[in-house]
Amino acid sequence: MLSVSEAFQLIEQTILPASVCEVPLSQAAGRVSACDVISDSDSPPFNKALMDGFAIRTLDIQDDVRLKVIERITAGEVPQCSLEPGTAIQVMTGAQLPAGTDAVIRIEDVLTPEEDEISFTIDSISPGRNVMSRGESMQMGEVVVACGERLAFPKIALLAELGRSKVSIIPQPSVAVLATGNELVPIDQTPGPGQIRNSNETMLVAQVENAGVKAVPLGIARDDRDDLRSHMKTGLQSDFLLLSGGVSAGVLDLVPSVLAELGVQQVFHKVHMKPGKPIWFGVRPADAENSRPCYVFGLPGNPVSSMVCCELFVKFALNRIENLPGLPAESRKARLRQAHLVKGDRPVYYPARITHNDHELTATPVRWVGSADLRGASEANGMILFTPRDAEYQENEIVDVWKWIEII
Amino acid sequence: MLSVSEAFQLIEQTILPASVCEVPLSQAAGRVSACDVISDSDSPPFNKALMDGFAIRTLDIQDDVRLKVIERITAGEVPQCSLEPGTAIQVMTGAQLPAGTDAVIRIEDVLTPEEDEISFTIDSISPGRNVMSRGESMQMGEVVVACGERLAFPKIALLAELGRSKVSIIPQPSVAVLATGNELVPIDQTPGPGQIRNSNETMLVAQVENAGVKAVPLGIARDDRDDLRSHMKTGLQSDFLLLSGGVSAGVLDLVPSVLAELGVQQVFHKVHMKPGKPIWFGVRPADAENSRPCYVFGLPGNPVSSMVCCELFVKFALNRIENLPGLPAESRKARLRQAHLVKGDRPVYYPARITHNDHELTATPVRWVGSADLRGASEANGMILFTPRDAEYQENEIVDVWKWIEII
Repeated sequence: MLSVSEAFQLIEQTILPASVCEVPLSQAAGRVSACDVISDSDSPPFNKALMDGFAIRTLDIQDDVRLKVIERITAGEVPQCSLEPGTAIQVMTGAQLPAGTDAVIRIEDVLTPEEDEISFTIDSISPGRNVMSRGESMQMGEVVVACGERLAFPKIALLAELGRSKVSIIPQPSVAVLATGNELVPIDQTPGPGQIRNSNETMLVAQVENAGVKAVPLGIARDDRDDLRSHMKTGLQSDFLLLSGGVSAGVLDLVPSVLAELGVQQVFHKVHMKPGKPIWFGVRPADAENSRPCYVFGLPGNPVSSMVCCELFVKFALNRIENLPGLPAESRKARLRQAHLVKGDRPVYYPARITHNDHELTATPVRWVGSADLRGASEANGMILFTPRDAEYQENEIVDVWKWIEII
Repeated sequence: MLSVSEAFQLIEQTILPASVCEVPLSQAAGRVSACDVISDSDSPPFNKALMDGFAIRTLDIQDDVRLKVIERITAGEVPQCSLEPGTAIQVMTGAQLPAGTDAVIRIEDVLTPEEDEISFTIDSISPGRNVMSRGESMQMGEVVVACGERLAFPKIALLAELGRSKVSIIPQPSVAVLATGNELVPIDQTPGPGQIRNSNETMLVAQVENAGVKAVPLGIARDDRDDLRSHMKTGLQSDFLLLSGGVSAGVLDLVPSVLAELGVQQVFHKVHMKPGKPIWFGVRPADAENSRPCYVFGLPGNPVSSMVCCELFVKFALNRIENLPGLPAESRKARLRQAHLVKGDRPVYYPARITHNDHELTATPVRWVGSADLRGASEANGMILFTPRDAEYQENEIVDVWKWIEII
């Protein structure tokens, strides 16, 4: 059976980065830049006041000196005068400094700031004080955003400062979620005997949205070729179709064969891991009717299996379509807070509570009885990878962890 | 001047938790639960198969035993027969087990699974194997979601399983962003002499949305009482109004006085910190015309001052209106990766690159020249608190950090 790292490699090889598009900057937060962005100007564009106060020449400042105020500049105004020996110009924070300025004296350090002549409560000031020189923060021609970088608010702010009101990004992929199974009822209904609520749909939508991507639920498809086919056809118009259920070895697991009829090529089925072994992955390539491929994950029906496979493989695939590099970026190291014995021969992705303890990341397995135990997993905010081995994992060992959600 | 912790206390005392509302579960992800949720059922509701295979009685299994298959159950079907000595019933993963079952033999371990009589490739199996007992994951009456807990996808999934298709939450607050200043031009325009682009609006909207809350930009208000008043009136209809600029000591800093006219009471102005000293905070209490209070932050105009104050104070306030407890949850410890000298007498929130290094969190100050240096801060994903002291901060010291965005 395929190993987890082989599965990652197959996903990596299968998924083509999406085409680039241009969007308003206000829609770019969280998306990946599709090009280098180069500064077309110096920042600040002029020598600039960092404080409200008076632009002066430091040479002029000695004990008891008085300077003549020859101009007062407010924000948005440009200085008309240059500083001559013995003069000062009032400026506000952010204002362009008059020619000849080499420092700004804070208004707090000025006696009689309303008068035409001012004197100071300080007797010296070094050149450059409270002045930001042209180009000090950014120079024309510098790469300020790299191609392939995810745009968080600090870069969005910088792009706004640079006037990049439109930016080239990799668009957010479209994701459809389809639960399959005769045993499912909608979550607002009371299950009859042998039935369960379709909690996977709600979970997968929330999980994909937690990864920053909108997901559309398609409802429940029954274990019936026609019903599966019509629901899947809708789903295959998205960039990703996430199926829940129907991929293990049961009598009615029709999903793989109906997918094949619809032109979806299997890439892999089953991965040596726990939970999540039955996972299925395939692709409907782009063709005459479909300008873009659709990547299909058949996620196991057990809720925690589905959850783990979504965190591990679907999130990785979402990164790949955005052309982000290499293997899962979400993996971290943490200190294990209690001993743990691995059962079975498969690597286990075990729900855990990951917390910051001083400057260390620590991980505690939650009480969890297996892939159907959503209650146990709901207390987790991540998972620990336990690889089968002869000895028990010891308290304080360093283990690999994946965070699911914000670690508080 | 107020200390940062005094400012936090004043915000904490001023902000009242928002009223509770009920929303569909599909809209609850990321919001805070407004009540305890108690399980109304056992999970699983019946003894359940954890594998595709055959329900058996472990007593029956010895060398060479053959069992008679008396029923085959698919998902959604309920067993009609009970297990009698010497019989087996085929089940799928998730199926309700027939009375009398105490283990499930995996289909992989069954010879001739299609026949009416089956035998096994294993010679023993312990009771409980591949069976999840009723109530093993969750028992009726248990508190599964606590009041005040932020609902991430694992809890959303559990609520779906429980059929809580509507949930009581603290609604997402409404946030308006208003930039002020004569020097501002929209980001798609080229600034004339002495002008700058209104990058703070784009930044603050992205920053608030990064905290999980939608923000609405109101454009630019000029340094003019009438224009400020009409824009502010619109903004005061939100739960939060974030103003950018107009709160330092400049000639045209009209913001506090126009706010006072509109019934906004100042709570504090200026905090002993760097950057961000000029920050202003106030409240327009609920009254006859306004059913809810509006909390107003006057953020400094310098972009990194605004950014730091938003991360520190606005995000804290957003947590408080959701009734989340105590002081900033975002503070962490990290190992400092290079020596750093603090200048001045104020605590400095210094832009930094926070990264995971093995199981430790580490922080490296970025190259940054001050509150106007957005370029420098754009390379950061968080900030380090440097408190003024006689000695330089040493490499490898443990420092307080705040993450701004996802730490990769």
